[in-house]
Amino acid sequence: MAKAPVLTPRSQDFPRWYQDLINKAELADNGPVRGTMVIRPYGYGLWERMQQEMDARVKDAGASNAYFPLFIPQSYLTREAEHVEGFAPELAVVTHGGGKELEEPVVVRPTSETIINDYFSKWVQSYRDLPLLINQWANVVRWEMRPRVFLRTTEFLWQEGHTAHATYEEARDYAAYIHREVYADFMVNVLGIDVVLGRKTPRERFAGAVNTLTLEGMMGDGKALQMGTSHELGTNFAKAFNTSYLSKDGQQKLVWQTSWGTSTRMVGGLIMSHGDDDGLRVPPRLAAVQVVVMAIKGDEAVARVREIGEALRAAGLRVQVDDRLDTPFGRRAVDWELKGVPVRIEIGPRDLEAGTAMLARRIPGGKEPVSIESLAALLPKILEDDQALLLEQSRVRRESRTSDVTTIEEAAEAAAAGGWARIPWATLGEEGEAKLAEQAVSVRCLVAEDGSVPDADDAPGTVAVVARSY
Amino acid sequence: MAKAPVLTPRSQDFPRWYQDLINKAELADNGPVRGTMVIRPYGYGLWERMQQEMDARVKDAGASNAYFPLFIPQSYLTREAEHVEGFAPELAVVTHGGGKELEEPVVVRPTSETIINDYFSKWVQSYRDLPLLINQWANVVRWEMRPRVFLRTTEFLWQEGHTAHATYEEARDYAAYIHREVYADFMVNVLGIDVVLGRKTPRERFAGAVNTLTLEGMMGDGKALQMGTSHELGTNFAKAFNTSYLSKDGQQKLVWQTSWGTSTRMVGGLIMSHGDDDGLRVPPRLAAVQVVVMAIKGDEAVARVREIGEALRAAGLRVQVDDRLDTPFGRRAVDWELKGVPVRIEIGPRDLEAGTAMLARRIPGGKEPVSIESLAALLPKILEDDQALLLEQSRVRRESRTSDVTTIEEAAEAAAAGGWARIPWATLGEEGEAKLAEQAVSVRCLVAEDGSVPDADDAPGTVAVVARSY
Repeated sequence: MAKAPVLTPRSQDFPRWYQDLINKAELADNGPVRGTMVIRPYGYGLWERMQQEMDARVKDAGASNAYFPLFIPQSYLTREAEHVEGFAPELAVVTHGGGKELEEPVVVRPTSETIINDYFSKWVQSYRDLPLLINQWANVVRWEMRPRVFLRTTEFLWQEGHTAHATYEEARDYAAYIHREVYADFMVNVLGIDVVLGRKTPRERFAGAVNTLTLEGMMGDGKALQMGTSHELGTNFAKAFNTSYLSKDGQQKLVWQTSWGTSTRMVGGLIMSHGDDDGLRVPPRLAAVQVVVMAIKGDEAVARVREIGEALRAAGLRVQVDDRLDTPFGRRAVDWELKGVPVRIEIGPRDLEAGTAMLARRIPGGKEPVSIESLAALLPKILEDDQALLLEQSRVRRESRTSDVTTIEEAAEAAAAGGWARIPWATLGEEGEAKLAEQAVSVRCLVAEDGSVPDADDAPGTVAVVARSY
Repeated sequence: MAKAPVLTPRSQDFPRWYQDLINKAELADNGPVRGTMVIRPYGYGLWERMQQEMDARVKDAGASNAYFPLFIPQSYLTREAEHVEGFAPELAVVTHGGGKELEEPVVVRPTSETIINDYFSKWVQSYRDLPLLINQWANVVRWEMRPRVFLRTTEFLWQEGHTAHATYEEARDYAAYIHREVYADFMVNVLGIDVVLGRKTPRERFAGAVNTLTLEGMMGDGKALQMGTSHELGTNFAKAFNTSYLSKDGQQKLVWQTSWGTSTRMVGGLIMSHGDDDGLRVPPRLAAVQVVVMAIKGDEAVARVREIGEALRAAGLRVQVDDRLDTPFGRRAVDWELKGVPVRIEIGPRDLEAGTAMLARRIPGGKEPVSIESLAALLPKILEDDQALLLEQSRVRRESRTSDVTTIEEAAEAAAAGGWARIPWATLGEEGEAKLAEQAVSVRCLVAEDGSVPDADDAPGTVAVVARSY
């Protein structure tokens, strides 16, 4: 007898599957204010591990964490013309504080370029103060008309980096460094998602940037998700806030800036990249729980799983012991499957007699008996294999569902069929891009023929990657 | 010739000294919206280390991190009568979102008991779901009329724990466990502050709590600072949100709850406890930089400090190398003193010839030459000694400036003179407490005669600790 599906199958209704998974794996709930979300402990654990891995990389890139206020005077937003145009429709505005109407309303930060430049302009005096490399972990608010948990929420959590440099070249190189060595390194090697790196078209650029670099992941339904962006801001904000420095040769010059961000949206990307009809599959390098050691029944099994848990922890693995005998074993096993813990070790009375355990692998699937003694030696390799398998599956999906096309019609068709299309940017152009937009298809990024990131929109041989997206 | 003071001396103007230190050590700036603050990288580094240490202890206490929304429907606040009365005057209210006036205004969370109970009431069904132990790291907003950086700010960062238990006893014991094993352990053993543990009088309780446990530190001017609180909420919020569970014997029962918090205010407490006229002194166990290795001048010194930095890092110390020869040595040394890094190792050409370095200790003061070879062996003991010294100085200050008194007048006098007074609670009572309040003196907490935390306000022999406070 086939077991009844726990989730709506992906093939039947992908958005519903996504919502089912989030509910049943206890990742998040909708908040009471439209578009907000409650991140539950298991979902937050995924975000905490993302934070740890990202924070270490950001610090290796030389940036220091700091914290800027949630509330920004409304007037700040208007100083950079494109920036306010981009964000005005999404702002939450505080008009009352401490029981009184405020003299000037304040906005809840949608991003922090403006307030941060206000301080950079005070802190930066001379070339000795540069580069200034700052990151902050914070919540931001952008009022969402069509919210979806983790993907588009009115409030989300993120890191936002903000830097100031003496020259154009330094700023450009730093934005590219974050894009490649921080973001791509994390997404490929920890999240196991085979992201495409490229630059945004002018239409898709961040409001106030002169160049936006992006990382695009292909989800299980063939749509694209923007997983993170790194912007060159040129001197746009420096002009608006007069952020300037005295150069070595005694001249007052504007700083060149970057900003870059990744958010809780990555949790959504993780689910839609690696989830299957049984639930989530968490890459072992990310997983807060890599191995769950389950007692099936009996006091002896409980004692043994605790011992094994200790031994595996001592071997450097992230382990949880599940000895909740008052909950049926089957229900617990389904729950760990839903939550996507990479390996389950199951031990019951018969296993104890044989000195073996059942080892269930969530990522490739399958179950086999192994000797308890061998676990500590076996598991690290299994986990690395499964990490590699997720990335390989992500790569194969992207390659098999990406096609090279030569006309705008073919590009639109490929996107509608749940794939990505590659079309020469010289063929598509901004006019073609506008046409595709009418069919809810967008240029996710521009890439060079060899897959590298082009230096300019009009670099010869530039290819547009076109898709539907979240 | 005596050097010109870098800061206003503490004895001359303590509040001005505090503000001077925060500016010159680059800990924080005032934000553009009244009462908000910008936490600069060095100040944020103190907070990050506090977070790490606290987070580990909170997790050891069995709690899991989660995240609840910033925005709370205004109607939620009104469900618990005392709670709304306490917080209504401090709320920031969002009336517009996405370019439109909202149907129901939302408040920016001043604390999260209400929104969290809304979810606890959904998540808790049976006794199997208890205890539910949740913590969140978040920003909160309480509109401040008399703001002071780190101590009272309109927006601050904190952790807030929220738990639900099956019985009164379990909730009571958990609140006490957090108070003692998490908060006091951290404050005494990491922050080096000899906090007094006690219970609040009814007048000083958290709005909605049935009992508030507190940790009070004595600052450099003899005033008290509330460093953290742990509350028993009884069934107050459970009643308001119908948070109930099916017990083992099949009855529907209300849960018993706790909540507990510590915030960026601890950074203010750290400054006011350990700072002196030369700047901050950071306890070694907290310090993100325990040792700075400074090159005085010359390329050879630069090469050598980098080597020494590597060697000390390999020995497990948190080290920063300062080889910024383009900034005068004296200015750099003053800056590290201001920032309170526990140990400076200074190396110039003459030191290299002798194979020695100057070792400057910020906490006891003083400088002596030591052999470079011996550093890795010497430093761990020096740092532990200095950690102990800060705690000892904190203890001596508190003991020498606390007096036992028998009348309300004496208590008020002792507080006005910059000290704490201990007076029998039976002598003071709520009437005496109200009288003291007229002179800006408050009961910081109630303690038992033996220094333990009393089980009730009216336990025999209970003593009130009375002081001016921040």
